[in-house]
Amino acid sequence: MAYNLLKGKKGLVFGALNEQSIAWKVAQRAVEEGAEIVLTNTPVSIRMGTIDELAKACNAPVIAADATSVKDLENLIDQTMEHFGGKFDFILHSIGMSPNVRKGRTYDDLDYDYLAKTLDISAISFHKVIQVARKKDAINDWGSIVALTYIAAQRTLYGYNDMADAKALLESIARSFGYIYGREKCVRINTVSQSPTPTTAGKGVLGMEDLLDYAERVSPLGNASADDCAGYVLTLFSDLTRKVTMQNLFHDGGFSSMGMSRKAMTTYGKGLEVEYEDIRLKK
Amino acid sequence: MAYNLLKGKKGLVFGALNEQSIAWKVAQRAVEEGAEIVLTNTPVSIRMGTIDELAKACNAPVIAADATSVKDLENLIDQTMEHFGGKFDFILHSIGMSPNVRKGRTYDDLDYDYLAKTLDISAISFHKVIQVARKKDAINDWGSIVALTYIAAQRTLYGYNDMADAKALLESIARSFGYIYGREKCVRINTVSQSPTPTTAGKGVLGMEDLLDYAERVSPLGNASADDCAGYVLTLFSDLTRKVTMQNLFHDGGFSSMGMSRKAMTTYGKGLEVEYEDIRLKK
Amino acid sequence: MAYNLLKGKKGLVFGALNEQSIAWKVAQRAVEEGAEIVLTNTPVSIRMGTIDELAKACNAPVIAADATSVKDLENLIDQTMEHFGGKFDFILHSIGMSPNVRKGRTYDDLDYDYLAKTLDISAISFHKVIQVARKKDAINDWGSIVALTYIAAQRTLYGYNDMADAKALLESIARSFGYIYGREKCVRINTVSQSPTPTTAGKGVLGMEDLLDYAERVSPLGNASADDCAGYVLTLFSDLTRKVTMQNLFHDGGFSSMGMSRKAMTTYGKGLEVEYEDIRLKK
Amino acid sequence: MAYNLLKGKKGLVFGALNEQSIAWKVAQRAVEEGAEIVLTNTPVSIRMGTIDELAKACNAPVIAADATSVKDLENLIDQTMEHFGGKFDFILHSIGMSPNVRKGRTYDDLDYDYLAKTLDISAISFHKVIQVARKKDAINDWGSIVALTYIAAQRTLYGYNDMADAKALLESIARSFGYIYGREKCVRINTVSQSPTPTTAGKGVLGMEDLLDYAERVSPLGNASADDCAGYVLTLFSDLTRKVTMQNLFHDGGFSSMGMSRKAMTTYGKGLEVEYEDIRLKK
Repeated sequence: MAYNLLKGKKGLVFGALNEQSIAWKVAQRAVEEGAEIVLTNTPVSIRMGTIDELAKACNAPVIAADATSVKDLENLIDQTMEHFGGKFDFILHSIGMSPNVRKGRTYDDLDYDYLAKTLDISAISFHKVIQVARKKDAINDWGSIVALTYIAAQRTLYGYNDMADAKALLESIARSFGYIYGREKCVRINTVSQSPTPTTAGKGVLGMEDLLDYAERVSPLGNASADDCAGYVLTLFSDLTRKVTMQNLFHDGGFSSMGMSRKAMTTYGKGLEVEYEDIRLKK
Repeated sequence: MAYNLLKGKKGLVFGALNEQSIAWKVAQRAVEEGAEIVLTNTPVSIRMGTIDELAKACNAPVIAADATSVKDLENLIDQTMEHFGGKFDFILHSIGMSPNVRKGRTYDDLDYDYLAKTLDISAISFHKVIQVARKKDAINDWGSIVALTYIAAQRTLYGYNDMADAKALLESIARSFGYIYGREKCVRINTVSQSPTPTTAGKGVLGMEDLLDYAERVSPLGNASADDCAGYVLTLFSDLTRKVTMQNLFHDGGFSSMGMSRKAMTTYGKGLEVEYEDIRLKK
Repeated sequence: MAYNLLKGKKGLVFGALNEQSIAWKVAQRAVEEGAEIVLTNTPVSIRMGTIDELAKACNAPVIAADATSVKDLENLIDQTMEHFGGKFDFILHSIGMSPNVRKGRTYDDLDYDYLAKTLDISAISFHKVIQVARKKDAINDWGSIVALTYIAAQRTLYGYNDMADAKALLESIARSFGYIYGREKCVRINTVSQSPTPTTAGKGVLGMEDLLDYAERVSPLGNASADDCAGYVLTLFSDLTRKVTMQNLFHDGGFSSMGMSRKAMTTYGKGLEVEYEDIRLKK
Repeated sequence: MAYNLLKGKKGLVFGALNEQSIAWKVAQRAVEEGAEIVLTNTPVSIRMGTIDELAKACNAPVIAADATSVKDLENLIDQTMEHFGGKFDFILHSIGMSPNVRKGRTYDDLDYDYLAKTLDISAISFHKVIQVARKKDAINDWGSIVALTYIAAQRTLYGYNDMADAKALLESIARSFGYIYGREKCVRINTVSQSPTPTTAGKGVLGMEDLLDYAERVSPLGNASADDCAGYVLTLFSDLTRKVTMQNLFHDGGFSSMGMSRKAMTTYGKGLEVEYEDIRLKK
């Protein structure tokens, strides 16, 4: 169901790899809600994924850019403004990658060049995108910038590794720049802390399946899907949320406010019984 | 501008006193967005305020109820369901009052009967509303319940007195019941932590005007108005936020994530100069 | 090992029932560290428990008082000051009880008279204690007041029921009164959010044993014991923490900052296997 | 007054430049409380400051190390263990510097090489210190690691610039590594979020004096001094806080839990009057 919630708005969407991607869903839904968009991703992701399909469906250009390269971003913003014939209204940042995770370096054996890359790709790129947009005065007053994040920024989850630190940095950048861009141009900057989501990126995380199940049973409304997330992000791009800024917004079926649900505890209790039984058998 | 965001939805709105009220604006905007509503307030507030005007504009019945009375609430929910011909979709709780504040009892000289009333009116009423609705199975699956709150629940503001404690209790009730109502009926419960707002209720707070100015200058986007708040609450009643629950959502122009802005500090600095000058003159 | 950390200090300890009680351990350790203390509890708890044993070991008087009764508290503070020959330095509030939990009323079927009692006993009593002490100017400058709380105030745990709301209220009172008492007399007020602890009170909570196990495996340092807690509370009564106030301090082996540990997830995974096996067998 | 709180403990202290430094005070107090220590700083800071004076008073060696260099840190840990004849018990990390702040680059005009340096010096150095210590198994079981931080990690303060992001990253590293080091060796890792403090580092921040005054009037107990901070850090190195880990602990006279104090609002109100008067005069 569409509401024309973004009628007349224009936006730039980072990070749509394939149809599992949250950015993909956001792009689709934004267009359904009346927005025009520009899509961007790294050259490698464009080759590996299926973004051209999305571009076609959204009638949107794809402009390649490495979000860690200021030069690429300058070109991207220029071309985006040229495409739109001027300023635009929203940006989605859905970018994250950890070479330490990929190469199996544990958190007590990090490679510091990899760590620098994790932070650059997953967090500092957000600052770069905003700084370049700001310098080029690319965003309309009362525009909206959103980045996707995860609760590991607040609470340690085994296996999430240095991505947790990257997300904490990302959320801090949203606050810091939210003040600057807000007071000057009324542009708001928020992060959406999404349920664990079985995207291509998400699948790289250690023990992801059990974690998905656990989060599903702890969250009273179950995990939020990529589709759910897209709907929520639309509200943040709309004029109905103009005074929300510098916030980290949990979109997670309630997970972040849960200590323990009966449902998850029941499963845990069964695991405990197995362990007690194992101990008894060993005696 | 309307989007039909609440087309087909039905809701119950507590706390519209007069056209300054946030509840008033929410009611108006909900109807503009396609919702049908029922209005309620205490008999005294109905007499003192101008709710009938709103009722007419919204084509909505007004059902008197004291939200601290389970009996009144039972009657209210019954009549609301009768009016709608069945279940409904959303509830707004915008109720708060402190006899201690009204009677000028400071926080180190609270009257405990008054405190019990502050908590009953401003927080426990929220539990009563939900419990009665839940028992009567009055809310459709994926319904949405919102209460209005204030940042005093997290950070002490002089003069806000026992209302701070009431708001902390209110926000806790949202979490506690959000789990129960979520896991069973997928009903979400959130609180919106709004900028200080010059409503009839807000005006009772000590030093409100200077505080409004301070919040305005600290918040990068300025204070959120009652109108802004109404727009935001609509998103929480809509289907686009189905997976957001048990959250306290700051709608405050960024105030909650600010330590100090340059603008507010400039004014503070001028006050300091006056004080230093006073000290010099006394010597 | 003792450090004379509280040498010359005097304090009042609420809530020592028996030797499992955290308050019991705090009293013992405070005396070991050089403090003089007064013990208090309700007449019923004094009869049911073994506080006289503690009193003997600590060379401390026991003064009966119902902490919900301002009159009792006035008498208690008077007698305590008489015993000490003047003002004293610290207070421990370790009081909590929910008639709704005791009588098996679930959170969507609360009895509101019971709820009022839960809040009065578990939270408002804290305000009463402080207000009475403040009015009688009973606490020395730079004194320290501590109440025990639990993470259910922030995150919902099934079965914790209305005690979660009471703890949220308690923590808010610590902040609100911390401002007032701090600015006037430099008295600090904090809450300690302790691991689930197998005290007489703790054992009443539904599913406590599995929860203890879960918390143990999630917390990198394991659950904090009552003994650990006593040690920590001593630091808050000492002169080394004079500038810490209005804080909720987690003393929980790291639980509050954890999303999921490998250890707990392993047990959960075994429970999952059992459930998948059950589903397969049913087919 | 000394308690022998750290009797028999050994520790490594980073960041003592001169007698204004918090690290300086921590070193002094730790020795007074019975600890043996090793001091370290960069070669430049050793030359610029007066650490040799401290070293003499504390009977401690000074080992030069750049905390961003893994090689330097390996040498430092080796020499420290050699000096102590084995493992040690605590580490203080009090390191922070932003080339962007120094060179006057505002947050919307960051130099990204500088940003990388800000993060490396102020946050990643903390990971490096811990990782090297962990690999060399340098810390005794139940050891304690503390880093100093500032509330800008949670709330934006104008002028604090990219140091805010660095502190957010630092606090995240404390959590992430706290899990790993806790579960394996029971080593706890916390950050202390200190009042603004007029150290050599602190003085570099824009508008520091007015900010100090503002924080002083907002905090019910006033700002915590470097001396106060040292006392507090001692408790975190002692055996009395063994179960506290992965926490960010505010040591700030209550500032973090305040929205607005009467005292600060009075000054602000005087500034407002000046501004209103100016506006009137212009008409």
